[in-house]
Amino acid sequence: METDQAKSFAYGELLARLRRIHVLGSVAGLLGWDEQVNLPQGAAARRGEQMALLAELAHAEGTAAGLGAVLAACEAGGAELDAEARLVVAGARRDYERATRLPTELVAEKARLSSEAYHAWAAARAARDFGAFAPFLEKHLALARREAELLGYGERPYDLAIDRHDPGLTAAQVDALFTRLRAGLVPLARRIDAAASEALARGEGPVALRGFDVEAQRRLVRAVTARLGFDYERGRLDVSLHPFCEGSGDDVRLTTRFDADQPLDALYSSIHEAGHGLYEQGLPAAYAGTVLGVAAGMAVHESQSRLWENQVARSRAFWRGLEPEFRAAFPGPLAGISGDALHAAANAVEPGGLIRVDADEVHYNLHILLRFELEKRLFAGELAVADLPAAWDDLSEELLGRRPEHAGEGVLQDVHWSGGAFGYFPSYTLGNMIAAQLWTAAQARLPGLEEDFSRGEFGRLLGWLRREVHAHGRREDAFALTRRVTGAELGPEALLAYLEQRYGG
Amino acid sequence: METDQAKSFAYGELLARLRRIHVLGSVAGLLGWDEQVNLPQGAAARRGEQMALLAELAHAEGTAAGLGAVLAACEAGGAELDAEARLVVAGARRDYERATRLPTELVAEKARLSSEAYHAWAAARAARDFGAFAPFLEKHLALARREAELLGYGERPYDLAIDRHDPGLTAAQVDALFTRLRAGLVPLARRIDAAASEALARGEGPVALRGFDVEAQRRLVRAVTARLGFDYERGRLDVSLHPFCEGSGDDVRLTTRFDADQPLDALYSSIHEAGHGLYEQGLPAAYAGTVLGVAAGMAVHESQSRLWENQVARSRAFWRGLEPEFRAAFPGPLAGISGDALHAAANAVEPGGLIRVDADEVHYNLHILLRFELEKRLFAGELAVADLPAAWDDLSEELLGRRPEHAGEGVLQDVHWSGGAFGYFPSYTLGNMIAAQLWTAAQARLPGLEEDFSRGEFGRLLGWLRREVHAHGRREDAFALTRRVTGAELGPEALLAYLEQRYGG
Repeated sequence: METDQAKSFAYGELLARLRRIHVLGSVAGLLGWDEQVNLPQGAAARRGEQMALLAELAHAEGTAAGLGAVLAACEAGGAELDAEARLVVAGARRDYERATRLPTELVAEKARLSSEAYHAWAAARAARDFGAFAPFLEKHLALARREAELLGYGERPYDLAIDRHDPGLTAAQVDALFTRLRAGLVPLARRIDAAASEALARGEGPVALRGFDVEAQRRLVRAVTARLGFDYERGRLDVSLHPFCEGSGDDVRLTTRFDADQPLDALYSSIHEAGHGLYEQGLPAAYAGTVLGVAAGMAVHESQSRLWENQVARSRAFWRGLEPEFRAAFPGPLAGISGDALHAAANAVEPGGLIRVDADEVHYNLHILLRFELEKRLFAGELAVADLPAAWDDLSEELLGRRPEHAGEGVLQDVHWSGGAFGYFPSYTLGNMIAAQLWTAAQARLPGLEEDFSRGEFGRLLGWLRREVHAHGRREDAFALTRRVTGAELGPEALLAYLEQRYGG
Repeated sequence: METDQAKSFAYGELLARLRRIHVLGSVAGLLGWDEQVNLPQGAAARRGEQMALLAELAHAEGTAAGLGAVLAACEAGGAELDAEARLVVAGARRDYERATRLPTELVAEKARLSSEAYHAWAAARAARDFGAFAPFLEKHLALARREAELLGYGERPYDLAIDRHDPGLTAAQVDALFTRLRAGLVPLARRIDAAASEALARGEGPVALRGFDVEAQRRLVRAVTARLGFDYERGRLDVSLHPFCEGSGDDVRLTTRFDADQPLDALYSSIHEAGHGLYEQGLPAAYAGTVLGVAAGMAVHESQSRLWENQVARSRAFWRGLEPEFRAAFPGPLAGISGDALHAAANAVEPGGLIRVDADEVHYNLHILLRFELEKRLFAGELAVADLPAAWDDLSEELLGRRPEHAGEGVLQDVHWSGGAFGYFPSYTLGNMIAAQLWTAAQARLPGLEEDFSRGEFGRLLGWLRREVHAHGRREDAFALTRRVTGAELGPEALLAYLEQRYGG
């Protein structure tokens, strides 16, 4: 009895310690949000100092000897803990092992390098000069390899980079999925490209949308995301240069950007971020800071944002529901534009587009295949940093059908590598695959789902996602989650079928 | 030589530790700002948890044995340190002694009580029910007395409360100053009240200002505060329920509030907060976190906000400069309103006003005299909490010439006591005294100062304040600072003369 009490005491102590780490992380997250939304121009160095101190304190909490002792006590009494508690302990052990194997000095070096490399990248991109960024990328790769040596990995160091964003997944698994995707997607994209080019040549390209009042856009976007289920009592919507979602639990913050001539950009980026936000708002609050209270990984996170953005909000049914409100908000700019033309604009494809963040949902995955291939080769030592631009351009021609004219629209276009965030890109396309599979399953389980959308109702879909995905936290990896929810193995087939159906003509 | 190096090493280590405490404090400050400007309604508990953890971490840093050791090493080598370093060490010693004498449990109890008491106060104020708030006030007083016992004080426990906001000052000093102020101010206020009441009776009250576009107000207020010298590259202006200024160094944030029918409220509250902000932006950045890099105290802080708000921005010269821009911003609502009428509206007095935060600069100090008197009696044990409302009402009649009709416009009107912030109120009136003395000195040293204002130029005044006040941090207390800068002892005479001149008719 006394032993049991000691064990449950240890488990309570573990939860309290995990909670502190979570709260410190949430403070850092808020400062990151503020940096992109509010920070005065002259305060960058001050913010850097604040973030570095918070990172140091969080690392200290995450590697504390006391945490190790409490973990050991929980593990020694493992048989007395229930299944959920055992999952929590195992997840905490994994994080503790990783944190304690990384010397503070390496953590600090990576933070410093990321800050320097960010500014070097921004300047290099503007100057279209890969050479100016290459040394920073070299350093990041060397650090990532050192990390992999310290933390261990499966078959190859790149596995660790993948696992950091999608716990439990390996590069080989992603590679196998992407090979199958590529086989179907490249010919499909070529066919869609040809049709789009022909339509353009006939003068049947997407309609131009101009002069949409920004305040009216803001009201509309807020109303739409609230209707999807995003709870503004526990969240916000603000403006930043690049849209993102930050926060968890009762404080989830979305950002977007407004342009009078790009009303669909604000709408879809907001819905995308609201998809992330709905996931964060739906995770079990009682488990915050444990594996049961966090997202299953970036792939599943991305599946939520993509499902709402693409499968839901680009559907004809969604636009039938939105059209009256959209017209009421912008009567002038929409005069003479039909509902079909609007829906077509929301589903326009751009053959040969070189910029990932502007890509439509057909081409987006080709951009990801390209980056995954290059990261794989870089980590395997098969590709030198110096040869990266040429390899990028060759793959671009192969996958997208077009070579970049300069590094700014090629190898330097993305911010990720400046922060050493290797292994992040694949999550986007894994997320697209999972979204398509969830969509197939949702339609089967929830008959008449699209009719809901045309009435502006999304509660049945959200409720299903809450029960099937959000409530589960990180109990399982992306494969197991997809299998449990959809009854099918994670794979590219549903995505290919969905793209064929929506864009195949 | 080696000893010297060890000493300078200890001093460097001290600065690094003070810097960490400062940075942690700046993070908590930012979260406090965000709480009042951005926080989603449902996230209050989350924010409380974040703030509590930051307070605990800051307390841990501020009481660390390592900090004590470094301080001792610096003191042992004191002779080798220069005068500035000795000031830094002495200030750090004072903070360290205070922090280490307060048990963590008492710090946590005060934080918890303040949170509960805040909600109890808000409900009690709405219900006009002092009895519902009284137990929380009792607890805060008991905690404050325990703090005073633990930390030590001069003649009476109230001294500690005063010293916390204005280091170096005692209740007896404030008492002596306030007695002299009261002797002059009460008859002056009665005379001004009589004249104002007669003017009102003649139908010559201040002009009503209605229908001022909020966006135009926002632009104007930003332009005006920028012209005073507030650096928006290192600061922001936002909206909150109650205006305040938060931050330091490169990230100083002002807030205000906008009402189409109260354009002068936004203007003057913004200028007031910008006065605080100018002080924070002018403190020596290299010394951030040490006594040389922080404000001399709340009285001096308040002198800066009041000087800009009152002496500068309520002057006729200032309005001559502002009038064209003000008219251009609001042509409609200002049609038929003369410049003199505008200036008079900015200097209107309200006889018998009961609410401190709405008080004009003549009556404001009477509100403070009332609160100081009551705090003094409460701390001395001469007044029981249960008798506080009656004592408030009696003093209100005596000082303001009017009794409140209920506790909501009397004893429950201010938030301060719910946070246990005893000793804060006197700073406001001390600040007004210092502002008047600085104003007298500035006019003598900078001939033609008011002509500057009528041209929209404020650089000479700001430069003088930067050199004479801001650059000095907390090298001296409010008395010594006033003496050095103005050549006169801190006293009420300049304030009385200024009020007589501006409002005496």
